[in-house]
Amino acid sequence: MTAIGIIGSAGRMGQALASVVADMGATLAGGIDAGGDPAAIAAAADVLVDFSAPSALETTLAAAIAAHTPILVGTTGLSPAHHAMIDAAAAKIAVLQTGNVSLGVTLLARLVREAAASLGNDWDIEIVEMHHRHKVDAPSGTALLLGEAAAAGRGVPLREVKVEDRAGLTGARSEGTIGFASLRGGSVAGDHQVIFAGPGERIELGHRAEDRAIFARGAITAALWLADKPAGRYQMSEVLGL
Amino acid sequence: MTAIGIIGSAGRMGQALASVVADMGATLAGGIDAGGDPAAIAAAADVLVDFSAPSALETTLAAAIAAHTPILVGTTGLSPAHHAMIDAAAAKIAVLQTGNVSLGVTLLARLVREAAASLGNDWDIEIVEMHHRHKVDAPSGTALLLGEAAAAGRGVPLREVKVEDRAGLTGARSEGTIGFASLRGGSVAGDHQVIFAGPGERIELGHRAEDRAIFARGAITAALWLADKPAGRYQMSEVLGL
Amino acid sequence: MTAIGIIGSAGRMGQALASVVADMGATLAGGIDAGGDPAAIAAAADVLVDFSAPSALETTLAAAIAAHTPILVGTTGLSPAHHAMIDAAAAKIAVLQTGNVSLGVTLLARLVREAAASLGNDWDIEIVEMHHRHKVDAPSGTALLLGEAAAAGRGVPLREVKVEDRAGLTGARSEGTIGFASLRGGSVAGDHQVIFAGPGERIELGHRAEDRAIFARGAITAALWLADKPAGRYQMSEVLGL
Amino acid sequence: MTAIGIIGSAGRMGQALASVVADMGATLAGGIDAGGDPAAIAAAADVLVDFSAPSALETTLAAAIAAHTPILVGTTGLSPAHHAMIDAAAAKIAVLQTGNVSLGVTLLARLVREAAASLGNDWDIEIVEMHHRHKVDAPSGTALLLGEAAAAGRGVPLREVKVEDRAGLTGARSEGTIGFASLRGGSVAGDHQVIFAGPGERIELGHRAEDRAIFARGAITAALWLADKPAGRYQMSEVLGL
Repeated sequence: MTAIGIIGSAGRMGQALASVVADMGATLAGGIDAGGDPAAIAAAADVLVDFSAPSALETTLAAAIAAHTPILVGTTGLSPAHHAMIDAAAAKIAVLQTGNVSLGVTLLARLVREAAASLGNDWDIEIVEMHHRHKVDAPSGTALLLGEAAAAGRGVPLREVKVEDRAGLTGARSEGTIGFASLRGGSVAGDHQVIFAGPGERIELGHRAEDRAIFARGAITAALWLADKPAGRYQMSEVLGL
Repeated sequence: MTAIGIIGSAGRMGQALASVVADMGATLAGGIDAGGDPAAIAAAADVLVDFSAPSALETTLAAAIAAHTPILVGTTGLSPAHHAMIDAAAAKIAVLQTGNVSLGVTLLARLVREAAASLGNDWDIEIVEMHHRHKVDAPSGTALLLGEAAAAGRGVPLREVKVEDRAGLTGARSEGTIGFASLRGGSVAGDHQVIFAGPGERIELGHRAEDRAIFARGAITAALWLADKPAGRYQMSEVLGL
Repeated sequence: MTAIGIIGSAGRMGQALASVVADMGATLAGGIDAGGDPAAIAAAADVLVDFSAPSALETTLAAAIAAHTPILVGTTGLSPAHHAMIDAAAAKIAVLQTGNVSLGVTLLARLVREAAASLGNDWDIEIVEMHHRHKVDAPSGTALLLGEAAAAGRGVPLREVKVEDRAGLTGARSEGTIGFASLRGGSVAGDHQVIFAGPGERIELGHRAEDRAIFARGAITAALWLADKPAGRYQMSEVLGL
Repeated sequence: MTAIGIIGSAGRMGQALASVVADMGATLAGGIDAGGDPAAIAAAADVLVDFSAPSALETTLAAAIAAHTPILVGTTGLSPAHHAMIDAAAAKIAVLQTGNVSLGVTLLARLVREAAASLGNDWDIEIVEMHHRHKVDAPSGTALLLGEAAAAGRGVPLREVKVEDRAGLTGARSEGTIGFASLRGGSVAGDHQVIFAGPGERIELGHRAEDRAIFARGAITAALWLADKPAGRYQMSEVLGL
């Protein structure tokens, strides 16, 4: 069985990872947090999963390279300098960096991109998401990721076509724009829907997360896929064979 | 068969009314527009349906009273002075004034009010609507009507709890608020959904209009109901027996 | 604080109840299972919640009556004889018996009944539900409960209008029927939707359960409501003030 | 402008085609029905659109070949012999034969196939559709087409995994099956949804037809695309560039 090493094991995601490892046919090689020894866990693990902090990335990558252990980097808030470190590491070991570890969302983004590329500008694109009442930002990162996929399908930058507010005397919809709407309430783990509205018909592509454990399962699935890969920088879409 | 007289027969709604009258087991007593003679049509009709302009209301009501003919007033943009005229007319004939003639929306508003009255503030209320790309205002009048129903169920004025924009760093949701989101695209005739999101569960109450003919059918249904009523001011909800 | 006594505390529902009691502002008076002493727990508790087995009901009710402790009976599979025992107990203490302890479903059933009573037979009623892949029966008990509510609104027995299968050359839909469809897959906790489809418009009334803890919370909410009620037989809808 | 010739111009689809031609930037070269002269219209048109009857196909194809005019064959109920005729014609002229002319459904089928190919058997597939109360068969042809796409993505024949009825004591869901559910009511033009339900998450891919004119528009779009193509047998997916 593949042994998973967790960097950031005390965090919310680290704990979630530990709780699903056994169910997914893997074992836990151990976990560390700030102050722990990455060299020891890199040597013990078949693959590392990092949901810690950007400040730890340089040391973690060095340990992974030294032990020749593949690594999934799920830490958010990375700078261009961090991305350069990852590119350098990917010359020596397998690295998968991603801001989204849900397999379902990864697939949905691919389908959205393909749909946007196939349909003309007479199909209006709207993205609506709902999350629990405690979420403090809008639209969600996943909604923006889906918007990026739609914009990429059309060959335009999202920032040029994004419409986030629609209230009052808005006037008619501008052709080619991509609209966002955010609902908040209750304990919703995360629902997203991308609507393509054409003349007389609609295509609706959506994802519903029932609980946050799907992110832990997605990360472990990706880690298991990554464990035997040669050096290189990989993406979530490759885990799905897209 | 009941004979329907249409005030504003050349307008979009007037034409729609004329096209559905026969299918609904009624006959057309005729129609007039600006410059027409309301006295003649009021005498010929068993009930009047008015989708003309506020400026014609005074003359139309006088003709209806003189002929003792009930009248449905669907004209929008009425002032307090117009409402006073309607109240005065309702002392002598049956008058139903409404800004919304869909039976489905009328029922939905009632259910929303009841749900809001039953559920506590730990159930967050969100209202989302979608309309075609040509609509120039947001939220829709029907979404606001549903919001009024929800607020009434909670015993608060909508203006104090309404949240129309949710983008950027919004912070956590404020308890007791009612959120609105508007989607625009394609040729959607009008979809509305009111979501009550509580801890671990959601109630979703929605309405979909497939085409705008439902408004004409709703108006004729209400007119047929109104035709034999005694003097008084009526509401759409009474047509449904609510 | 109100002290809750659990009959059937080792069962899945009993454990779920115990895990939410503290979060809901109550305390646990204790729990028993087959072989336990109902008299002791009935004396210690302010209200009993019974999710055990029908065979234990007679003894449990006797203990509740002796201690004059209200009781919520959520046990399923009750016979007419059991219902007679409950009626007899309700002459002396407060008893709430129900096959469904979700507050959301209770409210939805009420709204469905009201909608069915308001809309004529030209509005077709369809009920669709989705549950996880392990569920062994279809339609769900909740779908049938919603169908009973719709049929009651129309004043007909559900068994006379229920259509459970629709495959092959079915012919056109029969007026007045209520259709059921069941989807199974993944880990869905339970989604239900009642669709009223009229000419040109639809009303959709739905409920989504995110997890099964809502049933435990609903039972505790009902028990807290019941704790200070006089003798009588109560229903879930009264807990919501419907 | 491209001139469209309609074979079967008096039928419901033929009339719908004629009514949208001008809006779509094409002209009408004329139309014929049983007894009409296909040679004349084939000569006058830049492309033919055939929604007549299988019995007319042989004569129509001969006329198209003689005039070297591309043809879209939308007639349903074709036998293997008819398909052989189409293959023979496609050696000489451009022919697009399809049982579904909606661009939205064509795209959705492609996305469903791709999703099914990417997701493992732990994602259960369910297909639910809703149509108006007059529809006499279930599931709809489009639902079956979507099921074929899902089965093709998994590399299995649909007939081996299709489950059309789910009522009573069904037992747990069988792995790898594809379930169908059909709702009927009101005037719904046609809604379809394919649900992929995995552990803790769902992907929902759907299509809503607002009215039946989308089929006429889809056919004209395909005909305009076909008008300048070399000999060969084409498919709807190629019109979308899939």
